[in-house]
Amino acid sequence: MKVVIIGGVACGAKTAARLSRVCPEAEITLLERGSDLSYANCGFPFHIGGEVRDRTGLTHMGFGPARDVEYFERYAFTNALTGHVVTSIDRKKKQVAVRVVADGTTKVLPWDKLVIATGASPIRLDVPGMGARGGLGNVFNLWTLRDTIAICEALEREKPKKAVVVGAGLVGVETAEALRGRGLDVTLIDALPHPLAALVGTEFGTMLRTQLAKNGVSFYGGERLTALEGGERARKVVTDKRAIEADIVIVAAGVRPNIELARDAKLRIGTRAIRVDRFMRTSDPDIYAGGDCVESRNILTGKPVWQPMGSTANRHGRVIADHIAGLARPGARGTFTGSTFTGVEGTAIARVFDWSVGKTGLTSEAAREAGFAPVEVLASNPDLPGFMPGVATFFIRLVADASTRRVLGAQMTGPGRLDKRLDVIATAIMGKLTVDHLADVDLAYAPPFSSALDPVTHAANALRNKMEGLMPGYSPVELRAKAERGDDFVILDVRGEKELERFGKLSFDKNNKTNKSISAKAPRKFRHIPLGELKDRVAELPRDREIIVVCRAGVRAWSACSMLRRCGYTKFAVLEGGMAAWPYEVVPHP
Amino acid sequence: MKVVIIGGVACGAKTAARLSRVCPEAEITLLERGSDLSYANCGFPFHIGGEVRDRTGLTHMGFGPARDVEYFERYAFTNALTGHVVTSIDRKKKQVAVRVVADGTTKVLPWDKLVIATGASPIRLDVPGMGARGGLGNVFNLWTLRDTIAICEALEREKPKKAVVVGAGLVGVETAEALRGRGLDVTLIDALPHPLAALVGTEFGTMLRTQLAKNGVSFYGGERLTALEGGERARKVVTDKRAIEADIVIVAAGVRPNIELARDAKLRIGTRAIRVDRFMRTSDPDIYAGGDCVESRNILTGKPVWQPMGSTANRHGRVIADHIAGLARPGARGTFTGSTFTGVEGTAIARVFDWSVGKTGLTSEAAREAGFAPVEVLASNPDLPGFMPGVATFFIRLVADASTRRVLGAQMTGPGRLDKRLDVIATAIMGKLTVDHLADVDLAYAPPFSSALDPVTHAANALRNKMEGLMPGYSPVELRAKAERGDDFVILDVRGEKELERFGKLSFDKNNKTNKSISAKAPRKFRHIPLGELKDRVAELPRDREIIVVCRAGVRAWSACSMLRRCGYTKFAVLEGGMAAWPYEVVPHP
Repeated sequence: MKVVIIGGVACGAKTAARLSRVCPEAEITLLERGSDLSYANCGFPFHIGGEVRDRTGLTHMGFGPARDVEYFERYAFTNALTGHVVTSIDRKKKQVAVRVVADGTTKVLPWDKLVIATGASPIRLDVPGMGARGGLGNVFNLWTLRDTIAICEALEREKPKKAVVVGAGLVGVETAEALRGRGLDVTLIDALPHPLAALVGTEFGTMLRTQLAKNGVSFYGGERLTALEGGERARKVVTDKRAIEADIVIVAAGVRPNIELARDAKLRIGTRAIRVDRFMRTSDPDIYAGGDCVESRNILTGKPVWQPMGSTANRHGRVIADHIAGLARPGARGTFTGSTFTGVEGTAIARVFDWSVGKTGLTSEAAREAGFAPVEVLASNPDLPGFMPGVATFFIRLVADASTRRVLGAQMTGPGRLDKRLDVIATAIMGKLTVDHLADVDLAYAPPFSSALDPVTHAANALRNKMEGLMPGYSPVELRAKAERGDDFVILDVRGEKELERFGKLSFDKNNKTNKSISAKAPRKFRHIPLGELKDRVAELPRDREIIVVCRAGVRAWSACSMLRRCGYTKFAVLEGGMAAWPYEVVPHP
Repeated sequence: MKVVIIGGVACGAKTAARLSRVCPEAEITLLERGSDLSYANCGFPFHIGGEVRDRTGLTHMGFGPARDVEYFERYAFTNALTGHVVTSIDRKKKQVAVRVVADGTTKVLPWDKLVIATGASPIRLDVPGMGARGGLGNVFNLWTLRDTIAICEALEREKPKKAVVVGAGLVGVETAEALRGRGLDVTLIDALPHPLAALVGTEFGTMLRTQLAKNGVSFYGGERLTALEGGERARKVVTDKRAIEADIVIVAAGVRPNIELARDAKLRIGTRAIRVDRFMRTSDPDIYAGGDCVESRNILTGKPVWQPMGSTANRHGRVIADHIAGLARPGARGTFTGSTFTGVEGTAIARVFDWSVGKTGLTSEAAREAGFAPVEVLASNPDLPGFMPGVATFFIRLVADASTRRVLGAQMTGPGRLDKRLDVIATAIMGKLTVDHLADVDLAYAPPFSSALDPVTHAANALRNKMEGLMPGYSPVELRAKAERGDDFVILDVRGEKELERFGKLSFDKNNKTNKSISAKAPRKFRHIPLGELKDRVAELPRDREIIVVCRAGVRAWSACSMLRRCGYTKFAVLEGGMAAWPYEVVPHP
């Protein structure tokens, strides 16, 4: 059986490797248009930043050999051909036409099964000045191994001082950090108001802006790139709001799927990329596709989404190989054992200097759009018991469906260890857990690892409290919107006197859209009663106005609300996540 | 409504706190026989070791106040009474009899709802010399805050040089590490052959022995304590095999549930502890029980188990309070919303110096006993991509049911970050995921956090390969057993020449039970062909003997087996986890 694979980086290389293991009868040909095979492109920013000093780790096996043509021949029984560009697919004759880059000759290769793993390519921004950029310039994408080498060489050779990174998605943010790590002045611009806007909403996005600023990255959000100026080399990056000097420019404005071959072959294309079934077959059952060029099913919405991720591409490759090998077959209880692809959950994560940020599942907005009735809570948590050295805070925004109570998603950020807490939520989503079952998961507890109740458990419990009507709450964005609308409420700060003096109190003044000073009403709006005095002083609070309780992390506010309920108050709520999660202005007190 | 809670440390304190929040009409009385309330006992070993310098973190709220009688009064509307020993429960009259430690007086307290949270107590070892130990001696338990203070004072005052810790469970191992941290010579003894035998089996237990030895802890397994010698102060700890000098002795030989009150009140006792329903009610619907004195349901077996853990106790307390408050009620689809207790999964974790070790769910043995058909695999994994700095290895033993493919459990150990990978498995078990769905969970990937396919995904895929018959494998224990049985097989080591020279090759000689040297047959038994040469040299291997392939971590062995299958071989298997997971003897090569 002749199997031809188009594309040799992630999904294609994985398909070849797996196929060589599980399908002895397959004659595998791997066609890569570039010069390199199976490289770890997610590691590139870390190499540029100097954290991964030795590039061989990105291109070689841990036990030695480079993942090159010889490797695929010797270890994976695969005839790998680099510099081989597939120019068309003939479905009737079951063959592909190939152009050999080295000598311009053409070939025709027959197949019984074809795998399209053509990946994605960086989006080319069509602005004045971009056209003149070539290999000799100082404007780079960061996508392939060659891009990475070119950037590293430019950093060595030209010793640039000022860098502009266009695009604050995963690659852009990682690259900004990498260039700071090399000592450059870095400016990061994005058309959206916050960095990593595909991962997180306004609160976390605002926190990440602060985090970037703290680490010396100038971030300009909500600005469109309009031109590059400077001729053969870019000297200025121009947006609709400013011009920024640059010695080097990295364009990380996103990628698009490489679907031209599939489209020309009249294979079904979905909303953005190639449509495949759960065996990763295209509309032609002898043609498979996987990796960045296909759509996957979101397991929560059931709808196709395009999630170009190395992890997803690797899973695709396994499923393709197994189906070609005949391993997918009906199993117990009508399910398929062996490989089918369940779908994606929209998980993503990034490190932003000493913070992490990630998401899985649906945001409230996406959940509402998909027909769910989302409820969400924002919780601030220490990642370890408070008494342990190295404890750090992080923030969870947890989303569930109000009617089925099913967990729908989470976003997290902060300096605390949150990465695998995100994985717990991803696993809960796969298992269709309710928020109640999530709270009961028997998570591993010992002080070096977590609190008696893990932050995930705490967040699930906080969401349950909110869903049961026990703990009404507002997120910072919601509270600020209330203030801007001119809603009547009292802020009750239940922190201790010293905490308040040291950390200040929340304010709605800065950049508020009404142009009216909200905290000018402070004597009427702001009350301070430490939680320990609240039992005795509760009568000082009005019964007819909504009381919004604020503390450091949200825990004391929840206690205070319980006291208010006990004392017959009915209009109260907490500021979710407390001052720790308040991304807006803080002013001195008194 | 009068609610009386017996016990004020974990479950009892949590019940009071939650009840004060969700049940304004409850008049809460908390009775604690000891002098301290709501302390973080899991943190004690870390205080003794000096890692947690300030003890107030174990007894105070993060925002300041001690969790003492006044705190419960002021913050939790709870009448907390320390030094109050409940001597009997009168179910008919709905009252408890109480003896006040301070003055010996007695009281009777009425209740509408009673909560038994009497916890557990250290098992007292009945050996000669133990009887003489009192508060003045140098023999301690490590269970209460007072124990901790006493141990710290003894360390300060007496500057002991030699410590013996009796019992290598969680507390024993953590205490051994703590005492090493204080510079003592530490000997750890246990009746079972390996440390943490409740968590892990022979391979991991053997690795942990090595880990303890590397860190200067002398471990003697399979030895029973027979006596303490020395009179008023223990000078020697005597086992059935040796006598060990000791300046200080910590007895951490396990705990037993405090069920006397419940038993005397004729409440139903299960196999070891108080039996409760999913609302944490005892056989008397007005009496609840939770924490270390009750049994929980194991969610996999459906059977009662006794799991005395702080995390479980906290969950119990919430459920009890919610049910008293009337919050548990039938929800959508016949489930209960609000709090019911789903059960436990048997999760546990410990740090052992720079290693971690943990388990969740069932071992293969426990699974078989519960009627499952377990299959398992042992996998060695780097916790980060190999190219990232700080990457470290850990080992996963993953168990699934062969017929339903459901994930049943995992054990993990190693220097790598494994704690939250255990949580992923715990969540998968709660969600009743199959190993196939586990492999498809969209885990968060970026190089600072994980590999494109997380170790959990790799382990799930390895188990799938094994279940599909693609990758037969033996664990180290199984391979050693084969060798001792005298089975005919060839070891094929596919590592590179330099690796083999540097790290040596596996041996069955040391401590093998047959008294026959197995590797004496080495020329016949051991073959070395690096994976890269296997394609060309495969004919050197016999077709009629079983070939067991060995590499560093198991990945190349899997490739080699695929090659052997491709070349028509039928009798082959991998050594699971490779040499990295081989806990037995390694000898130089050649």
